[in-house]
Amino acid sequence: MNAPDSFPQLLARAREPFPSSSKAYIPGSRADLRVPVRDIRLTNGETVSVYDTSGPYTDPAVTIDVRRGLPSVRGAWIAERGDTESYAGRAPEAIDDGRKDETAGQLAALREQAAGLQRQPRRARSGANVTQMHYARRGIVTPEMEYVALRENGKREWMRAYLSDAARERRLAGHPLGASLPPVITPEFVRDEVARGRAIIPANINHPEVEPMAIGRNFLVKINANIGNSAVTSSIEQEVEKLVWATRWGADNVMDLSTGKNIHTTRDWIVRNSPVPIGTVPIYQALEKVGGIAEDLTWEVFRDTLVEQAEQGVDYFTIHAGVRLAFIHLTARRRTGIVSRGGSIMAKWCMAHHQESFLYTHFEDICDIMKRYDVAFSLGDGLRPGCTADANDEAQFAELRTLGDLTHIAWKHDVQTMIEGPGHVPMHLIEANMSEQLKTCHEAPFYTLGPLTIDCSPGYDHIASAIGAAMIGWMGTAMLCYVTPKEHLGLPDRDDVRQGIIAYKIAAHAADVAKGHPGARSRDDALSQARFEFRWLDQFNLSLDPETALAFHDETLPKDSAKVAHFCSMCGPKFCSMKITQEVREYAAAKGLADGEAIADGLAAKADEFKRGGGSLYVPAPEAGS
Amino acid sequence: MNAPDSFPQLLARAREPFPSSSKAYIPGSRADLRVPVRDIRLTNGETVSVYDTSGPYTDPAVTIDVRRGLPSVRGAWIAERGDTESYAGRAPEAIDDGRKDETAGQLAALREQAAGLQRQPRRARSGANVTQMHYARRGIVTPEMEYVALRENGKREWMRAYLSDAARERRLAGHPLGASLPPVITPEFVRDEVARGRAIIPANINHPEVEPMAIGRNFLVKINANIGNSAVTSSIEQEVEKLVWATRWGADNVMDLSTGKNIHTTRDWIVRNSPVPIGTVPIYQALEKVGGIAEDLTWEVFRDTLVEQAEQGVDYFTIHAGVRLAFIHLTARRRTGIVSRGGSIMAKWCMAHHQESFLYTHFEDICDIMKRYDVAFSLGDGLRPGCTADANDEAQFAELRTLGDLTHIAWKHDVQTMIEGPGHVPMHLIEANMSEQLKTCHEAPFYTLGPLTIDCSPGYDHIASAIGAAMIGWMGTAMLCYVTPKEHLGLPDRDDVRQGIIAYKIAAHAADVAKGHPGARSRDDALSQARFEFRWLDQFNLSLDPETALAFHDETLPKDSAKVAHFCSMCGPKFCSMKITQEVREYAAAKGLADGEAIADGLAAKADEFKRGGGSLYVPAPEAGS
Repeated sequence: MNAPDSFPQLLARAREPFPSSSKAYIPGSRADLRVPVRDIRLTNGETVSVYDTSGPYTDPAVTIDVRRGLPSVRGAWIAERGDTESYAGRAPEAIDDGRKDETAGQLAALREQAAGLQRQPRRARSGANVTQMHYARRGIVTPEMEYVALRENGKREWMRAYLSDAARERRLAGHPLGASLPPVITPEFVRDEVARGRAIIPANINHPEVEPMAIGRNFLVKINANIGNSAVTSSIEQEVEKLVWATRWGADNVMDLSTGKNIHTTRDWIVRNSPVPIGTVPIYQALEKVGGIAEDLTWEVFRDTLVEQAEQGVDYFTIHAGVRLAFIHLTARRRTGIVSRGGSIMAKWCMAHHQESFLYTHFEDICDIMKRYDVAFSLGDGLRPGCTADANDEAQFAELRTLGDLTHIAWKHDVQTMIEGPGHVPMHLIEANMSEQLKTCHEAPFYTLGPLTIDCSPGYDHIASAIGAAMIGWMGTAMLCYVTPKEHLGLPDRDDVRQGIIAYKIAAHAADVAKGHPGARSRDDALSQARFEFRWLDQFNLSLDPETALAFHDETLPKDSAKVAHFCSMCGPKFCSMKITQEVREYAAAKGLADGEAIADGLAAKADEFKRGGGSLYVPAPEAGS
Repeated sequence: MNAPDSFPQLLARAREPFPSSSKAYIPGSRADLRVPVRDIRLTNGETVSVYDTSGPYTDPAVTIDVRRGLPSVRGAWIAERGDTESYAGRAPEAIDDGRKDETAGQLAALREQAAGLQRQPRRARSGANVTQMHYARRGIVTPEMEYVALRENGKREWMRAYLSDAARERRLAGHPLGASLPPVITPEFVRDEVARGRAIIPANINHPEVEPMAIGRNFLVKINANIGNSAVTSSIEQEVEKLVWATRWGADNVMDLSTGKNIHTTRDWIVRNSPVPIGTVPIYQALEKVGGIAEDLTWEVFRDTLVEQAEQGVDYFTIHAGVRLAFIHLTARRRTGIVSRGGSIMAKWCMAHHQESFLYTHFEDICDIMKRYDVAFSLGDGLRPGCTADANDEAQFAELRTLGDLTHIAWKHDVQTMIEGPGHVPMHLIEANMSEQLKTCHEAPFYTLGPLTIDCSPGYDHIASAIGAAMIGWMGTAMLCYVTPKEHLGLPDRDDVRQGIIAYKIAAHAADVAKGHPGARSRDDALSQARFEFRWLDQFNLSLDPETALAFHDETLPKDSAKVAHFCSMCGPKFCSMKITQEVREYAAAKGLADGEAIADGLAAKADEFKRGGGSLYVPAPEAGS
């Protein structure tokens, strides 16, 4: 393991602002509420602001020391509410990092390096409930909700143009398919969505560094990136670097799925340095604590793990409480059985003990923990299909109905809840997934992994799944869990993470555009305009991955002069359709037809004139002729 | 330019059979009708056959000399029909290769290298019509139709399983959305589809090397790859190599969009070495012949170019005859105007002359040429939207209606016809494209470029467009024109071609699966089964890109022992869900529950028993509790 001192170098590339971009902040109703956006300066003097998930890393004004963690965003807000208390917290154990006592020496060194990341945990005062849902239901608009509202709106320069042009742009208004997207998101709207369970704001009181964001069908579609070391490969540095890298490219959430040694300490590094909500699957760590023997899991070990992770600041837990003993037999005839790690662990436990899952029987006990820290549920789909042949089968839908029932229980405790979904689903079965989820889970946000629309594309499953993700995102899924090119094959590296994220930014953005989210098209329109006007640099800088766009262009035309050329290497100078179109317009203008309308009128007149005079040149009208 | 002798080296990689794969042939009704498939041998002794576009290149038994071209497939069939004659053909001119006389010396050397690729052209005897549609409408089942039928069916071992299991697999039967997919494709079915214009078999009588294939909504969804040098970059060798490379990875058709010098000679190399139909956009070459000045184009130059290319064996021509003078003004307010190269050339011509397009006024003259060689129309969408903001506008649909009218005229001449479609279309507007096309173009095959569902992903437009392509393919599009990662940025190289093709194989396959094409799922199911049984090599070999799948896996677990390991680097040995699922099944089996059904019954009984005895452990039923 390298010394932590190497982090600054590792992170250097991820700290560079994007080209021609700078961090800006939208001011809120209080001085400590400033919502980040990325301003992209165009060569024509305009600025386009885009949603920014990269946190303070891309703000050169912020000093960052990954050994001490990010500055707090929400600390004052949490303190002001006066319903939490700091406390000693659970005593750390060697087993938290998958260690036996004999390796405690190594562990001490490891933890020493993370000393600057230790915080005194907070919890709800006795009897209090500190979830955003609890506040929302009591009519309280929290700073987190205001933050989300400002963030969803962005600067809205472009949005205003679209709203005023609504009539003219009707064909582009989108089909929301049941979503209800207001032109402007107000803090009160956010509160209402959270109160009715249709959106969540994952924000553990022990993760004050988080920049609040919402997951819900009436907000922008979000994406999640998975990171995490495994027993086979990868280190803490790699994981922290992947976290920062993932948020740079647009991950709205990150799940730490570490399964090897050092899980606890890795999590300290990740949570303290993360501007986005962090999710985990606590059963992974619990299993490490019992030596990897599923049968040896107990409610007590699991409960202790929940508290451990809640104290560290994890924002949502995947809990596979829908994998019930009675459903396991439904997977017996499946082509690929149970493909969820957590689901298979619980299935094994249920089988071995011939008992109902302790996640199910202790579900209300879990709620009691969640609401003391505001950890949100991500109710896991342990019986999701692992291949298209198993899609939408009885095992999957039996579990989904259970998740709907558990949602009601969670909501009884005002615990924020989202529902995980598949997986592998052919296109014709996607809609049923969404409609069943909306119906059985009462519009709790849906959070799907893809789905992959075919099974035979390992190495390219980010593409096979982006197809399904875009479709289900349009239909109402609130967050899309990315799939990288390494899915089914190995752990993703840095470049795989980027590939997966961009594929999912595309899917989420395609969904936003199709839903008609106000302003979603603004980035596309600005880029298309730049394309038409041969502002190559603007075209690159407005793209989801400016580095790659520039590099691809420069492979064939590297000179600076090509950045203002009125053609590219695809067609060469004679064949550029956009150049010819501009010539057509200039030609018409030179004939005294000054603007678009005049060109149109002039051309129409000429065409009519031509028709009247030269009709004999036409082929017989097809209606008459064939 | 390198000597042609370097081709064998360049092509060596593309000639290697895929791992564990061999070429097999399905015999037809005559000795010279043998339809290629690729047999993939699995480690469990099974074989999976897949559709094979790679031609003789992947058959080690065939000697290939790219300086002489591929062996003839259809020569005897064409000759037997007795309705064609060979003739001297048009005399080649220096301008065919974009040359003035002063460079005739260079040209002679260029053409000398292609001497082995020259053929005496054939044409229909006077008064004859040699199109597959003409034969079909007269009730003739050609060998080409039989070939297509056998090719679409494949070996059908897997299909039979699906057909017999139809009842059990109902949820997986697909939603054909108006397509009519018979379980077995007969030659007569092919004839009927071609006769009614719902499918085409692009097969110029001067391209006897082609392995016939069908494009139609009731067949497998096909993909097209574009290659072609431009004035800025690339050489003949690169283009021939890209052709072979593209068919290796699954291109069903290839369009040669060359625009620089040496167009004619490049085309000789490409057509003579292509096992798949070749399409072109003849206006590109016509423009070269008039020095790149759109206004100088004439019907005579264009007509001469059509004959030139028809004699060389081009199988379909993109003709932008729907770009009418009266429609140009409809593009004046567009964000990106006209983005089709051919469309913009014709718009400029119309504007400059204030005349109707000669492609429109001479459409029946064009039909007369097409039917003498059986060149199919690909009616170009010159007014397709170049950004999502321009999607489904009046310019686009006015042109589409004209293409429908022109389809009727083409069909009057029995000329095979498909219709090109966009382009850039947000998801919510895709369905209207398909339904308008089906309605206005009378089910003539639709052939779309993507569509891209967003505009802001240059560098990743293969993904943004694969989403739209999969959706519109499901809805009825017959062929998907690929988009590479270089789209909008530069000319694709070898790896870009592969990336684009695999993205489109995914889209086309996802569409086939969703439509419920019989047998389409077989490859996915075989791969999923291999995945579940940890047959790693089979998993790689069944994938669309075995090389990449293997390489990605080996990045973290390179040892041979990992190819039989019951885990991978993603989760490590403790967390492999599939391994745990198998353990669950083994555990149940050890308890005397021998097969899936018994496991299911046994588990259900245990669960019931548990419920009866331990009901108090349950949380209150949600229906009652909240």
